[in-house]
Amino acid sequence: MTVVTAKNPVRCFDAFRWEGTDLLAYKEEGSAPFKAITRQTLFRDPAIKCELRYFELAPGGYSTLERHEHMHAVLILRGRGECLIGDTVYKIDTNDLVTIEPWTWHQFRANADVPLGFLCMVNVDRDKPVLPNGEQREALTTDPRIAAFLKD
Amino acid sequence: MTVVTAKNPVRCFDAFRWEGTDLLAYKEEGSAPFKAITRQTLFRDPAIKCELRYFELAPGGYSTLERHEHMHAVLILRGRGECLIGDTVYKIDTNDLVTIEPWTWHQFRANADVPLGFLCMVNVDRDKPVLPNGEQREALTTDPRIAAFLKD
Repeated sequence: MTVVTAKNPVRCFDAFRWEGTDLLAYKEEGSAPFKAITRQTLFRDPAIKCELRYFELAPGGYSTLERHEHMHAVLILRGRGECLIGDTVYKIDTNDLVTIEPWTWHQFRANADVPLGFLCMVNVDRDKPVLPNGEQREALTTDPRIAAFLKD
Repeated sequence: MTVVTAKNPVRCFDAFRWEGTDLLAYKEEGSAPFKAITRQTLFRDPAIKCELRYFELAPGGYSTLERHEHMHAVLILRGRGECLIGDTVYKIDTNDLVTIEPWTWHQFRANADVPLGFLCMVNVDRDKPVLPNGEQREALTTDPRIAAFLKD
């Protein structure tokens, strides 16, 4: 039997899982608001200065509303959904590219009927995300489109 | 009319082209052997230490046989083909992951009947590839499987 690890030259894909790659919790439960989302680290190696992660949101799932100094470079690998970036809600579809600039509020949401899976490239050395305080959340939700997006 | 650039938060995908993203030559013509391959830079930004590029080989196309100090982290986005990594030829299919370790000879080839498109993450600061000399090429082709892979 071949043992497949993250160091194998080729790791085969099957149903949005990859050989030698663990299915991880998105974050520690209770550390931040999120729903129905998993994480796989596709590439992380001392020879390369970024990581490539795959996040998957089940239908109706969402990531944490947060911001940070580091940048996200995202490619939608599966499904459809919406994302809040700064003060705008965008529709996103398979293979679209999404750039999250430093210190920009952002959240991803899968549509109710399909999952949303995306690749996310980030610097290995990066800061921790911060959550909005009450005042910041209130400021965001004065826009009815953002309020509707954030409703649950 | 909205002008879409590489800085737009969302860049839509259509038929393996992305808004605000130029279709580029793979390399300067005549600088190295290759066939029927194009390049798009999906993400390159001062805030992030890697680039994400998309390479597409038409059916029967191939990249340059080369090696270098920097590492490649690859996800096959479209089609099927084969790649030589070190002394082994691997079959590759859509969404498979491919790791090219430093100083490892490598070449990608599309199958004859389908294109092969892949994402490639690399450090922004990286060395230039080197081509095999006659002796290195001869050493590789003593293996009949590699000789068959490299035949044209």
